[in-house]
Amino acid sequence: MYQIRTDLALETQEKMQEDKVELKGVRFSEEHVSKNLTISTVVIETENGAKAMEKPKGTYITIEASNMDEEDEDYHREISEQLARVLKQLISVKKEDVSVLIVGLGNRAVTPDALGPRVVDNLYITRHIINEYGKYAFGKEHVNRVSSIVPGVMAQTGMESMEIVNGIVKETKPDVVIAIDALAARNTKRLNRTIQVTDTGINPGSGVGNHRHGLNEKSIGVPVIAIGVPTVVDAATIVNDTMFNLITAMNQSSELKTLGNTLGELNETEKYELIRELLSPNLNTMFVTPKDIDESVKRLSFTISEGLNIALIDHNIFA
Amino acid sequence: MYQIRTDLALETQEKMQEDKVELKGVRFSEEHVSKNLTISTVVIETENGAKAMEKPKGTYITIEASNMDEEDEDYHREISEQLARVLKQLISVKKEDVSVLIVGLGNRAVTPDALGPRVVDNLYITRHIINEYGKYAFGKEHVNRVSSIVPGVMAQTGMESMEIVNGIVKETKPDVVIAIDALAARNTKRLNRTIQVTDTGINPGSGVGNHRHGLNEKSIGVPVIAIGVPTVVDAATIVNDTMFNLITAMNQSSELKTLGNTLGELNETEKYELIRELLSPNLNTMFVTPKDIDESVKRLSFTISEGLNIALIDHNIFA
Amino acid sequence: MYQIRTDLALETQEKMQEDKVELKGVRFSEEHVSKNLTISTVVIETENGAKAMEKPKGTYITIEASNMDEEDEDYHREISEQLARVLKQLISVKKEDVSVLIVGLGNRAVTPDALGPRVVDNLYITRHIINEYGKYAFGKEHVNRVSSIVPGVMAQTGMESMEIVNGIVKETKPDVVIAIDALAARNTKRLNRTIQVTDTGINPGSGVGNHRHGLNEKSIGVPVIAIGVPTVVDAATIVNDTMFNLITAMNQSSELKTLGNTLGELNETEKYELIRELLSPNLNTMFVTPKDIDESVKRLSFTISEGLNIALIDHNIFA
Amino acid sequence: MYQIRTDLALETQEKMQEDKVELKGVRFSEEHVSKNLTISTVVIETENGAKAMEKPKGTYITIEASNMDEEDEDYHREISEQLARVLKQLISVKKEDVSVLIVGLGNRAVTPDALGPRVVDNLYITRHIINEYGKYAFGKEHVNRVSSIVPGVMAQTGMESMEIVNGIVKETKPDVVIAIDALAARNTKRLNRTIQVTDTGINPGSGVGNHRHGLNEKSIGVPVIAIGVPTVVDAATIVNDTMFNLITAMNQSSELKTLGNTLGELNETEKYELIRELLSPNLNTMFVTPKDIDESVKRLSFTISEGLNIALIDHNIFA
Repeated sequence: MYQIRTDLALETQEKMQEDKVELKGVRFSEEHVSKNLTISTVVIETENGAKAMEKPKGTYITIEASNMDEEDEDYHREISEQLARVLKQLISVKKEDVSVLIVGLGNRAVTPDALGPRVVDNLYITRHIINEYGKYAFGKEHVNRVSSIVPGVMAQTGMESMEIVNGIVKETKPDVVIAIDALAARNTKRLNRTIQVTDTGINPGSGVGNHRHGLNEKSIGVPVIAIGVPTVVDAATIVNDTMFNLITAMNQSSELKTLGNTLGELNETEKYELIRELLSPNLNTMFVTPKDIDESVKRLSFTISEGLNIALIDHNIFA
Repeated sequence: MYQIRTDLALETQEKMQEDKVELKGVRFSEEHVSKNLTISTVVIETENGAKAMEKPKGTYITIEASNMDEEDEDYHREISEQLARVLKQLISVKKEDVSVLIVGLGNRAVTPDALGPRVVDNLYITRHIINEYGKYAFGKEHVNRVSSIVPGVMAQTGMESMEIVNGIVKETKPDVVIAIDALAARNTKRLNRTIQVTDTGINPGSGVGNHRHGLNEKSIGVPVIAIGVPTVVDAATIVNDTMFNLITAMNQSSELKTLGNTLGELNETEKYELIRELLSPNLNTMFVTPKDIDESVKRLSFTISEGLNIALIDHNIFA
Repeated sequence: MYQIRTDLALETQEKMQEDKVELKGVRFSEEHVSKNLTISTVVIETENGAKAMEKPKGTYITIEASNMDEEDEDYHREISEQLARVLKQLISVKKEDVSVLIVGLGNRAVTPDALGPRVVDNLYITRHIINEYGKYAFGKEHVNRVSSIVPGVMAQTGMESMEIVNGIVKETKPDVVIAIDALAARNTKRLNRTIQVTDTGINPGSGVGNHRHGLNEKSIGVPVIAIGVPTVVDAATIVNDTMFNLITAMNQSSELKTLGNTLGELNETEKYELIRELLSPNLNTMFVTPKDIDESVKRLSFTISEGLNIALIDHNIFA
Repeated sequence: MYQIRTDLALETQEKMQEDKVELKGVRFSEEHVSKNLTISTVVIETENGAKAMEKPKGTYITIEASNMDEEDEDYHREISEQLARVLKQLISVKKEDVSVLIVGLGNRAVTPDALGPRVVDNLYITRHIINEYGKYAFGKEHVNRVSSIVPGVMAQTGMESMEIVNGIVKETKPDVVIAIDALAARNTKRLNRTIQVTDTGINPGSGVGNHRHGLNEKSIGVPVIAIGVPTVVDAATIVNDTMFNLITAMNQSSELKTLGNTLGELNETEKYELIRELLSPNLNTMFVTPKDIDESVKRLSFTISEGLNIALIDHNIFA
């Protein structure tokens, strides 16, 4: 069946509801934190649920704020604080002075894929200071060991990001890995306004750059939390949305009614056939991105790194 | 009437042919330089032609090479040489030791809009050396005075690019301005494979960043040559292409025949109505871009700056 | 006479005192704002004072803070606020809704010279919004028109920074220009810990990159405030300091006493002769810079842009 | 004893000769390749030699070219070719289709330390292509697997560069590692004009950023070739050079003769005492660098990456 690509569990869940697919093994809840800010939780509890959702078992928490891509003097500190709270919820490591490796995935040279590298630029890094002077250098009883890496992209390094991270994890043995990555959504309305946090890590086929190998507890042996923001929509998705709008429009417009009915009567296979014919072949190598993407990514990277600084240093979610 | 956006005169001309619009006042010719390389010339000769084409009167030369966005050890030197030849054709300044200001338009921080700034990074700049030591510093009788500017974007400077260039032109009095800009095409197949060179300068509404004021001989008093490469397609264009493909597909697929006929029978107004309904409102602020845009822009900027270096320094097209 | 290079009026004044030169036409005062923060004012009142100081007539205010180059969560907001206060003191423009052009001088690609360009990256720019929507877009009665430019360096543009700024000033007619530049000090202790603000603008021979033309009220017709931070010491200065330390050390060490006396007895001409011989010729093209210069310039650029944002937008020093 | 810092074996050897120290266990030879280009070889053969030279046993080949920091249309291709030849000499791996990891050490954000990261930007990377499509994708019988990493600096990652490289080497198992790093010289005349290639790898205390752990065959289990270019001189070195010049000058100048004699008569301990007093304490955190360092590093990084591309791909030194 024709699949629309999204890295957001929330969008898959919505699509299922839209298509009236009954979802077993998937729990959903929603919290309206304030006028602009909603936090939704999708928990995939069973293998059947995972199969239906085409996402691994685990918890997916989504922070949505309609004003997230707007300028804000405090770089949306309230969102950073919610992010810290969500991280606390998802990280189950029980230990004092946790060692955390933060991984900025993506390509610094491609604006919508630069989120991960740019988050890492503004983190508060402590591991080397603790290694050299002890945690007393910070005048606190508990300080987490924070380190970070920007592995770069395969065209530049000749290696999978995951090979690089794997090697570093084995060498430096962090207790938990937090990976930041730019994602693909299916709806342009979500771009730069949504943060997904999940304990399932990074999985093959996800991300703007389409990772070919996973980065998760199974692959590297320590828990991996993934923080993702959708910054692109696959161009093919736009075409599909157009089809959907076309059918809806036709059913509502009297003069197009007959036409709409005919189109609406197509079964899934026929629709799939139609869409495949509509898709020009090079659309598969294209993505759609907002025109002000540079400003958005710059702001978002501050909001997320601040959330990590709050979680790991200021309010120490492990203490 | 619904207009599909393209900055390429060649695409407008093709669309007219497709739609069987008779074009008066527009001349077209084509030269197949080699297997991969075609140079086409569109000359808009009359005001009527300009109105029909929605582009100013003047000459638009397009270099197309299907392998332009591929890796090449010499950064496609044959294309650089053709570009130098085309520049010689278009620049009518008759003078020894010409003073040329090269303007890199666009936003360095947004990958598909960074072409102009990146071309400027690799130019051979001579004006300050000639001003300080005379042209004899180069051991040649004739050396052109080359200077360059990256004016930046309005969100960063608070000024129109054109205000900045205007001021600099008045102050430094170049004989000719060459502006480099990233463009929007209507067909994804043309992205990063096409260079348009025109003597009409930069005009309002063109470019990835949509210039609000023109930069042309009329506005600044000296000839302005514009070099442009399409690096994005407006997201709205993709929707339109889908429509077109839909109609074609329907007419060819027996089971969809009836449907296709109905749709094909819609007149222009009905089609426009339909498309407006299909367009989700935020698509207007989106663009479509190839996934390997960073590598393409990097390579293209070398090809173009090398073309300028050949034209202005090595082979001195004015000498 | 042998001259040690410094762009700080405060250092010239100190040197004069050290050398017991009586300074007429120069006023000096000092304010200890807090334990770490001192603000000194040098006013050069007469042409004779200007000649002695080798700096133009005008006011030079220096903010010194020993912790300025250390990490700080708020990017030293207290320093930003003092900077805003100093700017208010120096800018005499009396007008509502002032138009300000901020110029980031220097070379973004050379770390110690990148201060100006990096300050501009974080400014709050308003001119284009006011031009498009009016000042009511800000929901305030008074909003200043802030614009900015990074003119780049001559090797890249082929033009003097001053030609570029001149052209833009004539075109956009700001009421006042504020130029930010990296400076040379004579004492490494001052590097990255000192901000000099002056109403005399930028003058030939100053700055890390050594401007060849001035940017001041006389050259462009509107008041020019210059904000500078010393980020380098000329390598030749280090040699001179060594000489000075040598003589002092010799006078204090019993075994070297005879030697020190001999050296101390040299007159100025003899000392100059000696130093010229000591200087290896290529030291003239070298500078001395702290090893952590990148972090310092990053932090300082935030502190200064925040000072400008406070002065021009938040607390509007003109209102 | 007071030690002057240099990362160049050639300079240590020269200093020994100057000081008339007899060097056992160290071989030296020199080849004048052309008017501007000299290649010298220092081989440290014994542990005693290593102790005297304060450098590990092994071969140090130095390419010197007086015009290396000047602009050149071909980015000094003759130097790139000599570099490829020297690499062939030093790499003893005997194998077809060698797997090479190239490591760009240093801090991209600090101009004189950015050499390593910038060399990596222009390498021809093949490992991922061979892994995906086989070496036949290149239409050659033998293709080496080239991968690269820029590990970043400790303040940014919280990890030693060597921890990162170690992990990656264990994970991806290259046959040989080539590390590029910016070095410190003792003579400003050598800056940006010298390339040292050695089979001893990177050793603690070397490099502009002063590595705290080694990267060599002993530490990672595969041969490590280091390519280094001196881009800074420690500020303390300048002071010492001044002392040396002072003594020489005094001995030559009649009026200062007596003084010079006295100073010249000081024994090593007295000289050391004197220099320690002369050194202002914060000079230790400073370095000296040429003013045009950005252009030099840009050009040098092209020359070196081209040398690597020739060695590993074009002329395949292993084939």
